[in-house]
Amino acid sequence: MLREAIYHRPKNNWSYAYDRETVHVRLRTKRDDVAQVTLIYGDKYNWHVVGSQSSEMKVFAKDNLFDYWQAAVKPTFRRLKYGFKLQSGKETLWMNEQGIHEKEPENIYIYYEYPFLNPADVFEPPAWVKDAIFYQIFPERFAKGDPAIDPENVETWGGKPTPSNFFGGDLQGVIDHLDHLEKLGINAIYFNPLFEAPTNHKYDTIDYLKVDPHFGTNEKLKELVKECHSRGIKVLLDAVFNHSGGRFPPFLDVKEKGANSRYADWFHVREFPLEVRDGVPTYDAFAFEPHMPKLNTENGEVKEHLLEVARYWIEEIGVDGWRLDVANEVDHQFWRQFRDVVKKANPDAYILGEIWHDSQPWLGGDQFDAVMNYPLTEAMLDYAVRGTRDGRQFADLVGYLNAAYPQQATEASFNLLGSHDTPRLLTLSKGDKRRMKLATAIQFTLSGTPCIYYGDEVGLTGEQDPGCRKCMEWDETKQDQELFRFFAELVKLRKDHRALRDGSFEVLQSEEGSKSLAYAREADGEKFIIALNASKRKATVAIPVEKDTDFQVVLGEGEAKVKGRKLQVSLPPISYVILKVGR
Amino acid sequence: MLREAIYHRPKNNWSYAYDRETVHVRLRTKRDDVAQVTLIYGDKYNWHVVGSQSSEMKVFAKDNLFDYWQAAVKPTFRRLKYGFKLQSGKETLWMNEQGIHEKEPENIYIYYEYPFLNPADVFEPPAWVKDAIFYQIFPERFAKGDPAIDPENVETWGGKPTPSNFFGGDLQGVIDHLDHLEKLGINAIYFNPLFEAPTNHKYDTIDYLKVDPHFGTNEKLKELVKECHSRGIKVLLDAVFNHSGGRFPPFLDVKEKGANSRYADWFHVREFPLEVRDGVPTYDAFAFEPHMPKLNTENGEVKEHLLEVARYWIEEIGVDGWRLDVANEVDHQFWRQFRDVVKKANPDAYILGEIWHDSQPWLGGDQFDAVMNYPLTEAMLDYAVRGTRDGRQFADLVGYLNAAYPQQATEASFNLLGSHDTPRLLTLSKGDKRRMKLATAIQFTLSGTPCIYYGDEVGLTGEQDPGCRKCMEWDETKQDQELFRFFAELVKLRKDHRALRDGSFEVLQSEEGSKSLAYAREADGEKFIIALNASKRKATVAIPVEKDTDFQVVLGEGEAKVKGRKLQVSLPPISYVILKVGR
Repeated sequence: MLREAIYHRPKNNWSYAYDRETVHVRLRTKRDDVAQVTLIYGDKYNWHVVGSQSSEMKVFAKDNLFDYWQAAVKPTFRRLKYGFKLQSGKETLWMNEQGIHEKEPENIYIYYEYPFLNPADVFEPPAWVKDAIFYQIFPERFAKGDPAIDPENVETWGGKPTPSNFFGGDLQGVIDHLDHLEKLGINAIYFNPLFEAPTNHKYDTIDYLKVDPHFGTNEKLKELVKECHSRGIKVLLDAVFNHSGGRFPPFLDVKEKGANSRYADWFHVREFPLEVRDGVPTYDAFAFEPHMPKLNTENGEVKEHLLEVARYWIEEIGVDGWRLDVANEVDHQFWRQFRDVVKKANPDAYILGEIWHDSQPWLGGDQFDAVMNYPLTEAMLDYAVRGTRDGRQFADLVGYLNAAYPQQATEASFNLLGSHDTPRLLTLSKGDKRRMKLATAIQFTLSGTPCIYYGDEVGLTGEQDPGCRKCMEWDETKQDQELFRFFAELVKLRKDHRALRDGSFEVLQSEEGSKSLAYAREADGEKFIIALNASKRKATVAIPVEKDTDFQVVLGEGEAKVKGRKLQVSLPPISYVILKVGR
Repeated sequence: MLREAIYHRPKNNWSYAYDRETVHVRLRTKRDDVAQVTLIYGDKYNWHVVGSQSSEMKVFAKDNLFDYWQAAVKPTFRRLKYGFKLQSGKETLWMNEQGIHEKEPENIYIYYEYPFLNPADVFEPPAWVKDAIFYQIFPERFAKGDPAIDPENVETWGGKPTPSNFFGGDLQGVIDHLDHLEKLGINAIYFNPLFEAPTNHKYDTIDYLKVDPHFGTNEKLKELVKECHSRGIKVLLDAVFNHSGGRFPPFLDVKEKGANSRYADWFHVREFPLEVRDGVPTYDAFAFEPHMPKLNTENGEVKEHLLEVARYWIEEIGVDGWRLDVANEVDHQFWRQFRDVVKKANPDAYILGEIWHDSQPWLGGDQFDAVMNYPLTEAMLDYAVRGTRDGRQFADLVGYLNAAYPQQATEASFNLLGSHDTPRLLTLSKGDKRRMKLATAIQFTLSGTPCIYYGDEVGLTGEQDPGCRKCMEWDETKQDQELFRFFAELVKLRKDHRALRDGSFEVLQSEEGSKSLAYAREADGEKFIIALNASKRKATVAIPVEKDTDFQVVLGEGEAKVKGRKLQVSLPPISYVILKVGR
């Protein structure tokens, strides 16, 4: 067994409370190197009295280099002391905090500890999130409901989007079109920023406590939330707390008065006056954007203001959570307080961070419930759309991500294929709906809440911003109805079967160099097999099954038949099929 | 290069802010496998504009399987995007968040991130801690100053300690003997619990806001603290917040009234009434000890009470910090609030957790400043006293620990060789003062604050509790004066030279199977070489040095001479020598 490959370190994603009774313990070994791993555990104050217990671990994920093993245990007195026994052929090794041993260590002092399962530390994302299917709305471009509040110079709906023009989308427009969302089947909306701001994207806030007047009023948002809730739809807002807009009154005050402003400490000023020198502001900003000055979230007044914002929209307007813009650049201390305030206002509120990279430091239960799962986005696109990643590489990435976070973070993660910041999926797919469907079928059959970017369901196209922020198409004759039906079917399928939401995940077939792939999802006695072909040629996938396994195609193309102990699935070029095992 | 051995994951001990400007980045590779590692880094919003920068990494620690590399960088705009380039012979690999690559990745999106160096998240233990030398006092046994407050049935000073007897040590006794401590040279005292409690150890608190009447009064402690401060001595108290004592009034109330007690939620009651069934209390306790019921630190009132305790002794009595008993079994949420309260009361207060195992989850800057470094304790004893670990194994453990935590946690760690919970060092050494001195010389020449357990400096002996809790010997004719001089010299040496406190650490010589060992400490242009021999035979250690290196023996036995480019150190059986390089 390759000793250098064996890894475990208590807490984070390696040992964590899954719920108030259960601790998940994980171990990493070299891929295909170890035959059996046993978790040896007990109560540290009771080890020699009742003797230790043991539990066989299972490989729950694989990536290109490693196998990841997991066991779930329920320590009687909530204290857990543990070590590992690894076997391969005739070789047996024991591993604990002091390394790898060839004999079973007698001294339990050197075993690992998960010292106490305190409820306060249990990471519990809201239960509804893993059942949610999100729909992202860029409010200026979704629907126009009240022409009276149009911005000046509003352009005709459906015109060409530029970085700075306006088309008059508003909250009344969203209310007017909730039937469309209900028909699609989604049960949660993520809104891009709604608060007063000069731009069309509104990531440059002027007033955090006021709906932008061109979108409506706070009362109108309350009405929208109420209407959504009556249809079983949750509402998530965008919190842009890393930076304010350039017209945020405290920033204007510092611009005017410099170090003498009473708001001077609200920002990170390197040197007064506030100005831009050689393209670099004299103050910290989002990137180097002078109109997005970074807020000093360590300043007591700033903190108080933003935490009041966090509370207000949840408690008084009824929204169901926050998506946190540029969440990784704000201090952890702030987010911990933010979580306290938000969960006090509504324990069921969802806290979703925008983080593009490894996010474990925010997913310990003290900060976010989940992050936007960009590494998965890229992998899905690489595999299904760009063709730059084969089935094995895609499966490896999914395995890596499943092992990288506690299971509840994976279940609550926000899985997207596009957004206001990326080219649209159909455009990336070069108009090939097969690729778009393949990617979406994957998105809807993995753990984590899928999100549909407004208009994708009716065939909207568009390059990178501003192209991807086109007006929604409401002329039904111009909507792609076939695509809409595909989305609605997929939404329904996922909603109807828990196995597809938080069921177990197992790769059934993946080979280097091959663009086909098959995996299974299973829960509550229901099992689904998802077979994929990202190649331009047809493909056959052979999956080991029990003899005489029954199955039915529930969505997608492809023919399947059982031959002895093999399920053979024939897939047309660029296609997917979802099979339900059993009848 | 062995790919499975290469490890990095942002934050924790792998990339962290060392101060408000500097980020330390670390990488692990297989021991002696990689020739060169380069950190490639830049600002993510500026990468392609100014180009990336690079910095050669250095091996700063080794353990039995791995090399640990480190580089320190100061990102201009506090944002850091980075990856690694590894070279060995003709092989070059690049590593970033998406794994290991054979070509330099063009897409910086997949590089690692330390997204923003926010001051609030910088882990800053108090600066005085790394210069401190602690002295641990078990107050019932240190010195008797006021017979009027003796417990009933007090026994004659110097009698045989039992688990339950009393000898009348008190705070006035400590005040009366501060000269002894000043002569020894220590500059910080760690007191075992002082608060009202029925036992002689007082880990079963009755009143967290009151000095035990047999020790004195709150005013007396204030006087003691003032007197200590006037001598440059800090005072650390023991906070027993995991559990109360069985006579804690809220616990008595729950015992009496069961679920109807207004304090019912102050504890973790599995089943009413509170009783012991088959040796197991019906409520959570420290271990299974019925008289130490675990406090529910998630209950608002309990939290408020304990946080007020934390504040009171610092703000009103002037103590300099807290040692946290059974710190690992209390919830992280509580400790985060505790840190806020303590640091608000005194930003320079030291927060020290009692944790016997891997402590990274508490050392992220949001909870403790340091932990009691038991793994090092065991390693020092194994090497110097028990003879169960050779020089190489000891060096490997030091390397492992140095790599396991952020550097500032290592610098502030609390390094002990014995305490009220272990046999005394001289007893473990079977009376062989050479072993005791060898262990102590190591303790005083590593990073981390050393602590002397009261009486060790004058030759007190004693087995595991209660033996190790003997009365202090105040009869100078019975004190081991030679040992005292050794301790005083070592204390002075460490205090006089920063190199021995937070200087760099480098193993110069360690071989498998050999009981000799040499390492260097260096800072401010001063360099020390420490050579050790734990064997019963004499040993010679050869250390590569620059030609004609000057040196002087500053402490210990052993002869040294330079031969060409080798420093040859001859060590008697069981001995140490500390050399200062240069004159």
